Amino acid sequence: MTLILSNDDVDKLLTVEECMATLEPAYVELARGIGINRTRSDSIIAHPTEKDAIYGLKSMDGIVPSLGVSAVRINSDVISWPKVGNAQRRKKIPAANGRWVGLVMVFSTETGEPLGIMPDGVMQRIRVASANGIGIKYMAREDASDVAIIGTGWQAGTQLIAACATRKVNRIRAWSPSAENRATFAAEMTPRLGIEVEAMPDAESAVRGADIVLCSTSSIDPVYFAPWIEPGVHLSSIKPAEIENAALRQCDHIAVHLREDMPLTFAQEGTGAGEAEMAKAWAEKDGIDFEKLPVISDLITGKVKGRTKPEDVTAFINNIGMGFQFAVAGALVCRKAKEMGIGRDFPTEWFTEDVHP
Amino acid sequence: MTLILSNDDVDKLLTVEECMATLEPAYVELARGIGINRTRSDSIIAHPTEKDAIYGLKSMDGIVPSLGVSAVRINSDVISWPKVGNAQRRKKIPAANGRWVGLVMVFSTETGEPLGIMPDGVMQRIRVASANGIGIKYMAREDASDVAIIGTGWQAGTQLIAACATRKVNRIRAWSPSAENRATFAAEMTPRLGIEVEAMPDAESAVRGADIVLCSTSSIDPVYFAPWIEPGVHLSSIKPAEIENAALRQCDHIAVHLREDMPLTFAQEGTGAGEAEMAKAWAEKDGIDFEKLPVISDLITGKVKGRTKPEDVTAFINNIGMGFQFAVAGALVCRKAKEMGIGRDFPTEWFTEDVHP
Repeated sequence: MTLILSNDDVDKLLTVEECMATLEPAYVELARGIGINRTRSDSIIAHPTEKDAIYGLKSMDGIVPSLGVSAVRINSDVISWPKVGNAQRRKKIPAANGRWVGLVMVFSTETGEPLGIMPDGVMQRIRVASANGIGIKYMAREDASDVAIIGTGWQAGTQLIAACATRKVNRIRAWSPSAENRATFAAEMTPRLGIEVEAMPDAESAVRGADIVLCSTSSIDPVYFAPWIEPGVHLSSIKPAEIENAALRQCDHIAVHLREDMPLTFAQEGTGAGEAEMAKAWAEKDGIDFEKLPVISDLITGKVKGRTKPEDVTAFINNIGMGFQFAVAGALVCRKAKEMGIGRDFPTEWFTEDVHP
Repeated sequence: MTLILSNDDVDKLLTVEECMATLEPAYVELARGIGINRTRSDSIIAHPTEKDAIYGLKSMDGIVPSLGVSAVRINSDVISWPKVGNAQRRKKIPAANGRWVGLVMVFSTETGEPLGIMPDGVMQRIRVASANGIGIKYMAREDASDVAIIGTGWQAGTQLIAACATRKVNRIRAWSPSAENRATFAAEMTPRLGIEVEAMPDAESAVRGADIVLCSTSSIDPVYFAPWIEPGVHLSSIKPAEIENAALRQCDHIAVHLREDMPLTFAQEGTGAGEAEMAKAWAEKDGIDFEKLPVISDLITGKVKGRTKPEDVTAFINNIGMGFQFAVAGALVCRKAKEMGIGRDFPTEWFTEDVHP
């Protein structure tokens, strides 16, 4: 049986809490050279018809021996870079009849057979938030309770869930450029979290006095700036450019998700035309040796302390995703789907073959 | 509509001749930097239970702008290296309930949507043979008519079809270590080609006097040796080690499929334990600067001549596959399947999503 699952299925099966709990030891497995991550690759051409857009085929692979699975995550995207407010965003156009195309293929390492095929959308935001949640666990103050979030889109909800799962949160403020979006987000998330989410009129009023600032945007320009820094704050970002360089330089501790190919990370997020600027932005991160920053597993194993004293300013940069994360999340989803009888069952024979390829 | 196709479907839809004809201009598109190939990656762990076996997740991507498609080819393999006869082979174990797992996912570059999902087996041998067929077209003597083939397995049949599609072949001799296999192969291929395929008792009697020698094995040790070389012969191989180094050194012209990562090619075909030997085998290919060998597109564009005179000894080494080839073949298969109403039709919505991933 090979399961074909929907985002609704994945939403029922995968929680941020469970994903964090399974990812944490898996990151150590990866750091020990037992698990495998095949870094993301982006193949890009000009879009055949859309102006100022590209077609991109993105893939990343991973194997988690302890869970007995491997996974390939594939994105087949039409991408544009519109300017929204002051920030240039990276926006995928839903060109597939109003829909997007991201797939996760999960395989058994014992038999090789495909266990499941599912869209990546729900899993994507859960695994991103899980990494940032682990960042909070090891870097934010123990008593952090006041959370600010910049960005109220698809990723933002799970970012808050991860923060609330990790610290005793009692105040949440949210800001994004659209008053309507932030009001909707606050209205949706308040009952979900059981904590009032306040929609704020500007970013600065959202972050002032916060213990944890979550940047959760699709911006490739900075959205958090140096003058906003206060002692003891933990900064968290899901794109490498969200936290201004000058702010990063004031941090006492910085960790990244994956150190591999940091400069590449910048180039990949840029447009073809914008690559030079991205490379420049990268070069400007002087004063920080990105090649030597600790990674998430260094925090988990205790090799590096995320914070040494309450007034430290810390930052976790979730710079690039890993196929390995999708293998972890995919393993959880496929196991639970089977147990709970969720998803469309197909004969595995449709996705296997009787000839030696 | 997203098509789920079987190997039988692909066999009905894709011919070696058509694949060669479409691949030829596509290789030029690739060489000009318009098409994209994302080199194969292999993620490998020890198999959880099988002794002396590994689990390998292999992926390769490609985009063919002129055909409006991209593709990802995925293999989820349990691999062992048994010794058969004098040669060590690379053998995939059909651990998925007696079956193998290789998939080709084909996407539209215009909408991003998945056009088709199909096994890679039949396509695999057609695209391998197509590359070797193009090698024959540009490197073998115009009047080549006598063909020898070493190996009578899955790849061998299409290799002969490609040779017959490219030259006026009137004699075919075949050898493989198993008398039964070569007899079966000869009996099957004779009516298919309309030319008698003679099963020979040893490799040397098969290759003597042949104008074209096709190595078509799963061997990671040499199967064609220097003393067998005769003036004017064209050698063709589907694995880099099949033609003995000493034989390659006697060639007047050598071309490879893809120059990228040549040393890696050797390592990838080896076992974990065997990597050192493979690296050694690579280093021993002295007298040949592999980094400067022409590639298939150099032959097609005429940048490099495959042969300058009838007595030249030539070799085409199909050293590594490309995701790009699967995109070309996948484009053909999906277009024809749609036209002919072949395959299982699924709602594209099952493989797309309504959230921005």
